[in-house]
Amino acid sequence: MAPQTPEPVGFGTRLADRSTPLRLFSLTPPREATAPEDLSRIADVTIERLQPLGLDALVLYDIEDESDRNPDVRPFPFVRSLDPATFHADHLGGWQQPVIIYRSVGKYEPADLKSWLAEQDPGQVATVLVGASSQHSAVRTKLAEAQSLWQDTGSLLPLGSVAIPERHARRTDEHDRMLGKQAVGTSFFVTQVVYDLTWAKDLVSDYAYACRERGVEPAHLVFTLSVCGSLKTLEFLQWLGVHVPRWLQNQLEHSDDPLTDSYDQCATAAAELATFCQRLGVPFGFNVESVSNRRVEIEASVRLAGAIRDLLED
Amino acid sequence: MAPQTPEPVGFGTRLADRSTPLRLFSLTPPREATAPEDLSRIADVTIERLQPLGLDALVLYDIEDESDRNPDVRPFPFVRSLDPATFHADHLGGWQQPVIIYRSVGKYEPADLKSWLAEQDPGQVATVLVGASSQHSAVRTKLAEAQSLWQDTGSLLPLGSVAIPERHARRTDEHDRMLGKQAVGTSFFVTQVVYDLTWAKDLVSDYAYACRERGVEPAHLVFTLSVCGSLKTLEFLQWLGVHVPRWLQNQLEHSDDPLTDSYDQCATAAAELATFCQRLGVPFGFNVESVSNRRVEIEASVRLAGAIRDLLED
Repeated sequence: MAPQTPEPVGFGTRLADRSTPLRLFSLTPPREATAPEDLSRIADVTIERLQPLGLDALVLYDIEDESDRNPDVRPFPFVRSLDPATFHADHLGGWQQPVIIYRSVGKYEPADLKSWLAEQDPGQVATVLVGASSQHSAVRTKLAEAQSLWQDTGSLLPLGSVAIPERHARRTDEHDRMLGKQAVGTSFFVTQVVYDLTWAKDLVSDYAYACRERGVEPAHLVFTLSVCGSLKTLEFLQWLGVHVPRWLQNQLEHSDDPLTDSYDQCATAAAELATFCQRLGVPFGFNVESVSNRRVEIEASVRLAGAIRDLLED
Repeated sequence: MAPQTPEPVGFGTRLADRSTPLRLFSLTPPREATAPEDLSRIADVTIERLQPLGLDALVLYDIEDESDRNPDVRPFPFVRSLDPATFHADHLGGWQQPVIIYRSVGKYEPADLKSWLAEQDPGQVATVLVGASSQHSAVRTKLAEAQSLWQDTGSLLPLGSVAIPERHARRTDEHDRMLGKQAVGTSFFVTQVVYDLTWAKDLVSDYAYACRERGVEPAHLVFTLSVCGSLKTLEFLQWLGVHVPRWLQNQLEHSDDPLTDSYDQCATAAAELATFCQRLGVPFGFNVESVSNRRVEIEASVRLAGAIRDLLED
């Protein structure tokens, strides 16, 4: 007899509903050097801004330098950010919905990661475990080990993993990796920022047919979308490994208003990916982030999340 | 030096109108072994079928074996076809609109090609000169030589050239090649069959911005679309060098009705490319062909050409 599935709580309850798309918004916590009195103010402003969006969860990223991954100069300088778990615990008490806290597992000692996983309230917190950004990174905990630690804590926190269409375009095995991650407990996937719709659809398609062949129920696949208001932000997206098709790169480079152009492209992508996933029976969702901390880009991100809410309610 | 533009006639008049999209339909002439009495019957049936489409021109292909281009087995066996110029001259008298006759220039002796070019009525005939399909082909006339011969005959026939988004994806210089072909007299381009919309848009975009930078008026870019009613046809398209995105290949392979699915994809492609070209100010058009000679695929091609006519009239 199969083990009884524990009654889902928090974000897990949301994941159990496969027919309603997920709506996430992600933040990078404030820089580590932020004055303590400013942190609560930033948290309050953020909560007030995001509250009307009716999100299923707020995503908090765990930023790594990643400069070992890319020899080119990082377009935005790396700034150490506050630990997302600390920012959540100390300042986001006013946020009533679940949070999804990323863990770049290579940064943590196994014992610390395990006790963090054990201490979280599955009614409030889900996690996305992310492996090292490069094989050259100094790694304290590997991804497979982190997944074991999660199992050791009773597999209670809803567990997410990353899915990367760009890697699929290079190696055409990302759907196999996803199924491997599902086999150890992953119940949702979040992509990196998507600007190449064909590559995103290629991954959805290979994943959907692989699930059918193996009799596996597909997990939610959440596409991350990000507006791009300047050539610097475009350069940063590309530095992060995001593939922007030539035509769109040309358009943004020649545009008087790249913010609006990229916003429109994100809205088009959301509509097209929603239709595509529905057709293939893959539960899906969208995660809106701003890769820069420029005010106009953050404001456009909030508008985009609102537009996606409206699109999905239609 | 660019040749002086003569007063346009026939298809040339149509090309002078940059704001109305071109609508073409292409045929491979009947096999060489066809009985003479059957040729007229085939021509009459074809004309009757195409007449209601209101085409700007009928394209007649000049088929080469091309097996030197691809070491894989040709999915449909190569059958020698009637020379398109002969088929036109002897059997298509009932076709009132212009024809665009392809010339695979490597097949012809320079003197023969030149006299053919000189003998055509520019009010009725345009040509597309196509270079050898592989560098290993035995070549009687090279493309540059054929272009010179065309100039020697007074540059009277409207001259088209091929444009290949797949080559652009590999080498990113197809827009430069196009500008080079324009400089020697090309006034329109026809692509090979398009199934990868991103790659087609990449080429349009690089071409449009290159034209702007160099102060050149873009020439009509005609996208070839072809339905695909079976896995054999899909295989043949790929053998011909057409890039079908993974997601679409999966869809067609798993479909109960690939003909309808590919038809829908062609219609979507036409709408999206039309909008894209209009936005970038590139005059455009569509050419519908059936790469197989199966009846259902030919009938679906005729329906597709009708749907494109309706789309462009909206």
